[in-house]
Amino acid sequence: MVTTEIETTLAPMLSVRNGRNAVEFYKTAFGARELHRVEDPEGAVVAELALGKSSFWVADESPEHSNFSPESLGGATARMVLTISDPDEAFERAVAAGATVVSPMTDHSYGWRVGRVVDPFGHHWEIGKPEETGS
Amino acid sequence: MVTTEIETTLAPMLSVRNGRNAVEFYKTAFGARELHRVEDPEGAVVAELALGKSSFWVADESPEHSNFSPESLGGATARMVLTISDPDEAFERAVAAGATVVSPMTDHSYGWRVGRVVDPFGHHWEIGKPEETGS
Repeated sequence: MVTTEIETTLAPMLSVRNGRNAVEFYKTAFGARELHRVEDPEGAVVAELALGKSSFWVADESPEHSNFSPESLGGATARMVLTISDPDEAFERAVAAGATVVSPMTDHSYGWRVGRVVDPFGHHWEIGKPEETGS
Repeated sequence: MVTTEIETTLAPMLSVRNGRNAVEFYKTAFGARELHRVEDPEGAVVAELALGKSSFWVADESPEHSNFSPESLGGATARMVLTISDPDEAFERAVAAGATVVSPMTDHSYGWRVGRVVDPFGHHWEIGKPEETGS
């Protein structure tokens, strides 16, 4: 046996309607890179995308396996917290790609600059960074 | 201004009922470490937890802000993919802590050993690792 130490990592898998379109959206909106993709004969997609150091998964919903899209449930049970050097630029890019503003970019009292959008597939994204201190 | 380069990272924030209990559960079930925690006067929690190299957030739901728990919607719109050296041990630990088996640990044709549980707050976890090859 070849034994390799595996680092513990956690990545969310987002359930969506129309996984193909969702993968394209996340590339355009957030600059995600496709790491891995499987498509079944009916066109259902499971894809792993990279965003900086992190990765996340996108998969067509399969309610029979308890994987529900936000469109099917009328809301989302997790939101994505995207930390990035230039959140204003990322926010504008996401909106230009078709995301809808939930909360504009704002400096919050807890020390972060954050805005929130909902993507066309119903997933919510908080885009921000810790505020710089010092002068 | 102090300008520090910020690495792009993505972390999911799980909406739950009873965030306090959820934070304790994730510590016991997955060995999560608490990095950060804010509690409001009513006891609603926002906490950042570390799991190996990754982090995730847990927050009490706030439907008025479109943050819904799986209990409120009757399902989850994202599942958590936990990659870990000893997924069988992690799976057993989660079940011992109160998670319910959805799919037992199984070697899949796509090259991963994976099992799935649902936690007491309605979030689903796929716990696995890539299969070792070689002899």
